[in-house]
Amino acid sequence: MRAAILSIGDELLLGEVVDTNASTIAARLYNLGVNLPLQMTVGDNIQDIVEACQLLAGKSDTVIVTGGLGPTVDDVTALAAAKLAGSPLEPNREALAHLKDFAERVAEKLHPANDKQSLMPASAKVIPNLVGTACGFSLVHDGCRFFFLPGVPGEMVSMLDETVLPALASSGRHKILRSKVFKVSGISEAELDAMLQGVTEGFAAASIAFCVNFPEIEVKIRVVADEKLTADKIIAIVGDKTRNILGSRVFAEDGETIDTVVAGLFKKTGATLSLAESCTGGLIAKRITDLSGSSAYFLEGLVTYSNRAKIDLLGVPAQLLEEKGAVSAEVAMAMARGAREKSGSDLALAVTGIAGPEGGSAEKPVGTVFMALAGQEQCRVRLFNFHGDREQVRLVTSFAALNWLRRELLARP
Amino acid sequence: MRAAILSIGDELLLGEVVDTNASTIAARLYNLGVNLPLQMTVGDNIQDIVEACQLLAGKSDTVIVTGGLGPTVDDVTALAAAKLAGSPLEPNREALAHLKDFAERVAEKLHPANDKQSLMPASAKVIPNLVGTACGFSLVHDGCRFFFLPGVPGEMVSMLDETVLPALASSGRHKILRSKVFKVSGISEAELDAMLQGVTEGFAAASIAFCVNFPEIEVKIRVVADEKLTADKIIAIVGDKTRNILGSRVFAEDGETIDTVVAGLFKKTGATLSLAESCTGGLIAKRITDLSGSSAYFLEGLVTYSNRAKIDLLGVPAQLLEEKGAVSAEVAMAMARGAREKSGSDLALAVTGIAGPEGGSAEKPVGTVFMALAGQEQCRVRLFNFHGDREQVRLVTSFAALNWLRRELLARP
Repeated sequence: MRAAILSIGDELLLGEVVDTNASTIAARLYNLGVNLPLQMTVGDNIQDIVEACQLLAGKSDTVIVTGGLGPTVDDVTALAAAKLAGSPLEPNREALAHLKDFAERVAEKLHPANDKQSLMPASAKVIPNLVGTACGFSLVHDGCRFFFLPGVPGEMVSMLDETVLPALASSGRHKILRSKVFKVSGISEAELDAMLQGVTEGFAAASIAFCVNFPEIEVKIRVVADEKLTADKIIAIVGDKTRNILGSRVFAEDGETIDTVVAGLFKKTGATLSLAESCTGGLIAKRITDLSGSSAYFLEGLVTYSNRAKIDLLGVPAQLLEEKGAVSAEVAMAMARGAREKSGSDLALAVTGIAGPEGGSAEKPVGTVFMALAGQEQCRVRLFNFHGDREQVRLVTSFAALNWLRRELLARP
Repeated sequence: MRAAILSIGDELLLGEVVDTNASTIAARLYNLGVNLPLQMTVGDNIQDIVEACQLLAGKSDTVIVTGGLGPTVDDVTALAAAKLAGSPLEPNREALAHLKDFAERVAEKLHPANDKQSLMPASAKVIPNLVGTACGFSLVHDGCRFFFLPGVPGEMVSMLDETVLPALASSGRHKILRSKVFKVSGISEAELDAMLQGVTEGFAAASIAFCVNFPEIEVKIRVVADEKLTADKIIAIVGDKTRNILGSRVFAEDGETIDTVVAGLFKKTGATLSLAESCTGGLIAKRITDLSGSSAYFLEGLVTYSNRAKIDLLGVPAQLLEEKGAVSAEVAMAMARGAREKSGSDLALAVTGIAGPEGGSAEKPVGTVFMALAGQEQCRVRLFNFHGDREQVRLVTSFAALNWLRRELLARP
């Protein structure tokens, strides 16, 4: 099966909106084993839409179209579809019933303009929308099946998953695809490439790709096979080999993130946490509390940007700040010890560094970060020399903090 | 001038990467007054690339191509361009010199694979790359000018701005475009639409569009004219009218954000700030410290997730927490007063609420947020009832906090 995506919307070609729909659909088609050689974008213009559909029909069996099904006059996709199909636009009974039902459910009056959304080419088949007013529709033109979906991402995805993908899955033979992701950090693509040489040997159906998502790298194993059992078997074998080679460099697999892994370990160990942040300014606390349920282990976070805050809130000796400077191993340790003592947490992590662009020196350039972790028995400190701009230094620092917490919690009984 | 964009890369059609390049280029072409009716994406496949180029050449004067200029074997864009131009691929002297120079500047050895990046169609003209190894090139085919750029966003943008856009600007006549953006919040699109009825009356060249970027709405005025003077005059008149109508709802214009506006006001007034965050968990502190120079006014932030932290760090009376609950007007005020007292800041802002998905009740559902602002003379508190998921509630809460600080600082002498 050869598919194509057609994205419709002036906002896309004016650069006001990034087309995330195309990438969402592409990923799902890939997982279904559908070949996608082409994507196109046109504006809200009937002639351009019709021409694009004709072109894509000549190159594909299936075209997924998004956008331009809204209630306002600038949405002309249904008109273009009617022209393409040579079939008049008429009120669709099923779509009308949906609009009424939707209005009742949300207990709101529909604007008269919404009526337009029940107009479809006479030959079209409705695609139900469970979460919005715009019904989609499908039709066949020139031997190619077109699925027209709204551009609102939440509605589009719901209709794609409920109707379009099941229809595609039940028609024709597909390749079976399996993939597995290992997330690592602190190692280059070239090093990873060298480490994983030969890991797919003997499995022509398997391939490995790397995707850099600073400061993380995703190692993605892909298997394409004719049979489900074969695909499952190969992904299991190559996955295990890869996991063994990468070892403790792997901090998360598949849908996990460093944030969810750390949250899971706190819940599992029952340990509690407090934070003292200087250069990250609350970013680590923000990432910890992004996840619901974090109040069970996260007691408090202190964003001690000024020296006075470090003294008053964490009990860092003024003399230490004077002698060693705020960005120093000694101050990082004093911050961590102070946070642990004041909060009564099991673990306290402290960060002090230079995020830039100002504040760097020859001795302590931008990217210099001291991180300390205080536990019941000891307080350890580490020095990092990160590269990048302010946002990157803060991001990689927060990652390193979470990764240290992960290793610490993993070592607990 | 009619332009088109061609994005090249398997990763785009596998749904692994969202194509932000297309939107970046589209926005810049729009600002230059270039018409962009079409964008296409194909994979790293010579035949597909050649066919797409031929198709686009028939529909456009200018095609901007991105992706597939890297050093590895899967990058085949230069090969496809050579096939398109019917011109052999050969080492380009200028590109070779660039590679050598780049290697010297970054003091790194280039991998032999990088040599491939100096191969270009014999008829091509080099587009210099100041920030990476991949030179781009331009060539004319079928009366259409093609610009080939790398897919790495930073390199692509630099070459676009340095070479491609100046070349386009100096060729042919363009419409003059001007735009102006007002950012507002706390008002619906429909209300905005009604308020701004008639604001472009008498100016056929002007139009208004709305773009929702939760929790903000951008009101964008666009003017298209033949003459620069006319465009500047119309944008000034319609802009002033719009600003007068929207009044204090406007929190930022054009490139400004609520974050930069608040930072500017702190610098201007010389006021200092401390924060006490519960449900936002450090997000407000993170946004404040995202901006370099924030240490001049931001003294400290306390993420008091637990009751004990509220008592110990902020001096909130245990009895108050017991009687009123952690999410209450009284506790929000006690938190703000405590933060101000402990830090010695001019202003202290405190937030306590229910971000969800757990923790809501009939009386205090998810989205209930109390926010207090303590100054020298008074402490005020506000109740918000936000809607949305955890991420949205936290985001809109942080926005509301920054907006309150903005209004407070604006009222200062």
